[in-house]
Amino acid sequence: MRKEKEKIKIIPLGGLNEIGKNLTAIEFKNDIVVIDCGLKFPDEEMLGIDIVIPDISYLLKNIERVKGIFLTHGHEDHIGALPYVLKQMNVPVYGTKLTLGIVQTKLKEHNLLSVVDLKCVKAKDIVKLDNVSVEFIRTSHSIADSVAIAIHTPVGVLLHTGDFKIDYTPIDGCVADLARFAELGRKGVAVMLADSTNVERPGYTMSESVLGDTFEEIFTNAKGRIIVATFASNIHRIQQIIAAAMKYDRKVAVSGRSMENIMEVAMELGYLEVDKNVLINVDNINKYPEDRIVIITTGSQGEAMSALSRMAASEHKKISILPGDSVIISATPIPGNEKLISRVINQLFKKGAEVIYEALADVHVSGHACQEELKLMHTLVKPKFFIPVHGEYRHLKQHAELAVKLGLPSNNVIIADNGEVIEVTRDLIRKNGTVISGQVFVDGLGVGDVGNIVLRDRKHLSQDGILTVVVTIEKETGSVIAGPDIISRGFVYVRESEDLMDEARELVKGALRECEEKRITEWASIKSNIKEVLRMFLYEKTKRKPMILPIIMEI
Amino acid sequence: MRKEKEKIKIIPLGGLNEIGKNLTAIEFKNDIVVIDCGLKFPDEEMLGIDIVIPDISYLLKNIERVKGIFLTHGHEDHIGALPYVLKQMNVPVYGTKLTLGIVQTKLKEHNLLSVVDLKCVKAKDIVKLDNVSVEFIRTSHSIADSVAIAIHTPVGVLLHTGDFKIDYTPIDGCVADLARFAELGRKGVAVMLADSTNVERPGYTMSESVLGDTFEEIFTNAKGRIIVATFASNIHRIQQIIAAAMKYDRKVAVSGRSMENIMEVAMELGYLEVDKNVLINVDNINKYPEDRIVIITTGSQGEAMSALSRMAASEHKKISILPGDSVIISATPIPGNEKLISRVINQLFKKGAEVIYEALADVHVSGHACQEELKLMHTLVKPKFFIPVHGEYRHLKQHAELAVKLGLPSNNVIIADNGEVIEVTRDLIRKNGTVISGQVFVDGLGVGDVGNIVLRDRKHLSQDGILTVVVTIEKETGSVIAGPDIISRGFVYVRESEDLMDEARELVKGALRECEEKRITEWASIKSNIKEVLRMFLYEKTKRKPMILPIIMEI
Repeated sequence: MRKEKEKIKIIPLGGLNEIGKNLTAIEFKNDIVVIDCGLKFPDEEMLGIDIVIPDISYLLKNIERVKGIFLTHGHEDHIGALPYVLKQMNVPVYGTKLTLGIVQTKLKEHNLLSVVDLKCVKAKDIVKLDNVSVEFIRTSHSIADSVAIAIHTPVGVLLHTGDFKIDYTPIDGCVADLARFAELGRKGVAVMLADSTNVERPGYTMSESVLGDTFEEIFTNAKGRIIVATFASNIHRIQQIIAAAMKYDRKVAVSGRSMENIMEVAMELGYLEVDKNVLINVDNINKYPEDRIVIITTGSQGEAMSALSRMAASEHKKISILPGDSVIISATPIPGNEKLISRVINQLFKKGAEVIYEALADVHVSGHACQEELKLMHTLVKPKFFIPVHGEYRHLKQHAELAVKLGLPSNNVIIADNGEVIEVTRDLIRKNGTVISGQVFVDGLGVGDVGNIVLRDRKHLSQDGILTVVVTIEKETGSVIAGPDIISRGFVYVRESEDLMDEARELVKGALRECEEKRITEWASIKSNIKEVLRMFLYEKTKRKPMILPIIMEI
Repeated sequence: MRKEKEKIKIIPLGGLNEIGKNLTAIEFKNDIVVIDCGLKFPDEEMLGIDIVIPDISYLLKNIERVKGIFLTHGHEDHIGALPYVLKQMNVPVYGTKLTLGIVQTKLKEHNLLSVVDLKCVKAKDIVKLDNVSVEFIRTSHSIADSVAIAIHTPVGVLLHTGDFKIDYTPIDGCVADLARFAELGRKGVAVMLADSTNVERPGYTMSESVLGDTFEEIFTNAKGRIIVATFASNIHRIQQIIAAAMKYDRKVAVSGRSMENIMEVAMELGYLEVDKNVLINVDNINKYPEDRIVIITTGSQGEAMSALSRMAASEHKKISILPGDSVIISATPIPGNEKLISRVINQLFKKGAEVIYEALADVHVSGHACQEELKLMHTLVKPKFFIPVHGEYRHLKQHAELAVKLGLPSNNVIIADNGEVIEVTRDLIRKNGTVISGQVFVDGLGVGDVGNIVLRDRKHLSQDGILTVVVTIEKETGSVIAGPDIISRGFVYVRESEDLMDEARELVKGALRECEEKRITEWASIKSNIKEVLRMFLYEKTKRKPMILPIIMEI
């Protein structure tokens, strides 16, 4: 028998054809390296679901080979599934200092901190496993301390860029390690997996530091308090806001749990430099004149329970919006959040605040590479094979086209889906089979117990509500002893629809009588008769289709 | 007693602090003129609602004074509530030819065509009522035959711009009647109500005709079929697509009910010129080579049941997407529709189509005036008083600021809300009281029967589902004869949660026993005991809060 060629297997279990729940398994011989372990926020149709995590059945089946989870950065879509995954699979977690700092607060909430093996690495570190070694390379992104990951194997180097942009003037001075990408490229990279988020955007993403000018201008002109909402994880943005506050002699208060948590971690670990006497407790803001105050807060996506939304709706316990406040929403709406943000903006304006948001000023820059930056990365790394990742199909497709335009043969580019197995040898990249993959819904304490049937019911209930029909019948004769009672929830308001309910009850009585006369005693048949007669009646009268739930009690 | 000063009353019943359901009542003495009668599409939280219409209680109370409904153009947010309003208040409806053509198809569907008095007007027409006269003035918008409305009263002229943009090269050659706006301005306009939709956008909205170049370029390069999705009402867009088809010798097929309806009306009335042998039935598209076909269709907002969505999901009966098709989505996402559209784009790409959409090419222009156009209108009309309309609060606020920047004293500008009464005399504009206003939900055949209680229930059901608990007890003793039975819908999938359900049943049994022992026989108390014990148990076990519906049958 011919010895099988050595190959790298790449198995994305999340992050392809979606934005979120990034998790990719890289296999070589006895080593499985997991890159990232993210969550996804539920789509609109996932009613009642809190978060969505990847199905890791495949990893559990191969658990003895999983050498660790290697994190590129500390965003939810890259680390958010960790507490759930680690409960099933307690493997070492590798990440840079800030990333692990954020992970720690998460694990603490899940009472997992003491049992998980966190391994802190820094850019340029190399972790040697049995058959491969894993190298961390500095990148820039909208969170500090992000890295790309290079996996060195006998077949060649696999490079996963993580989320990145090219920022020549980053706030922390740590420019992406372009020299290392170039060096790897010169020596030869077998396969690259790269961020596709912004592939539709021409040109370059602006440097985070350009926002310094915007903040400067706003701080110069603001006569009242300044309230800035941004992503809690954007340490560099927060650093710039604090710098402006210090320059203009304003105190800084913080509101919003995630903002407080991450700022605390970032300060403790040295990622955020704040003069201690600049920070004040939010309880003390009224002790200072309005033009001496900056409040940094969460809610830049209009999330219902966030600090900014509560301020806008007059539901915040400690902060009321005042006429003359300047509120900066330093973010871009994530698709799906446009209306939520718009509502907050309207409420803030109504309270007399000046609201400064994307449509009106340059108050945000993206964390992802646009076309020209992607071209730079491709040109430096010159991979033999390429797999676009981190995007919906439209992004993957266009990133694949970009690679081909830069000279890669189209056979060397693979657009894959979650669960597909991609094999890379020295000469070839190809798909070879699939493994179990999918989405696991987290709802309250339940992980995976809400499935499609429950969601379908929630959808049905949400549209037209439910009519419950209860009747007690005598076992022997099938004759009705009590009921039928009809109860509506979410269908019509009964007090205003008494006639309809009366008619419905008569129809059910008729159906029951008919069953009795025809000696139909099977519950299933009686129930389906009730359902059918009600369904037709209600649709004719209302053109609605509530869920109909007949319940028969026998005595 | 001093004779009260003559005044115009302006009562917006929809369209302020929202995009949609535009309806404004203008009163002078015995005349009430209603401008527009639109619907709004439901927000996300209005679960199961089909459309939202304005509450017209105030008009019904003053029905003998309502002289008619005067339409500015044929978009849903300006005419969509007509069938519902006319059923309650059968007054004449004035509109231009195309607007009424579209209204007619609507009335036909509601069997109202024969009973409604439709009065066709054209630009420059003046309708004389008892105390005021109503003038129609040509404007440009994303639908043909749109007009502004000037109401001439002894107190002065009220000008309502309707939705407008300034298009110097419109497809039909009918430029907005800037001369008439200027003339009115020179003679003196008492109060202007103007479109605020695009007030956040600097500069000018591009002319509809610039899209001709985009279509030309796409048609030159397309090797397969061309499928264009756009708003059915955008006759000029459709005219340009047909022009390109004719130039490049392609046949045109149409798919989508609203597109077919409106194109038929527009052709019949002369707003759309189509060489008869260019149009083919969609059944015949396969009789032509792919590069000889254009399909015009609906679904540019990703609406679930639209023709394009069905094509993308392989659910369209007559059209399958083929590799090599070029699909143009000629529209901008309306806020809230971003994810729906993105899904369609992904599906189309996966089927091998080239998809051309806003992010990639200039395939859409707005129908609303940007800042420079608004400034032009304000400068021509020079109103004494100004009320920004057609926008959320953020838009109204910024439009008010724009007017003040152009020189209007801020006391002369009023930002109002639906239901507020605004009085205008020769000297003064002020708010004076409110009337009933609000939103009426249409759900199936029900108009107004779904209220906040039903919606609150639907919301609750959608998040955590429902647990129904049924028990039959003996009237006299209160002892349990049958049950308790527990049925879950949308909470957990029972087959996978048998233990939880068993435990819940035991708890309910316990609660019932306790009631029996304590001689608690009031249903309300028994039910609230059951609810409470289940609520606490389920929250502890699952951190979820399903609706709990206890039902007691007595025999």
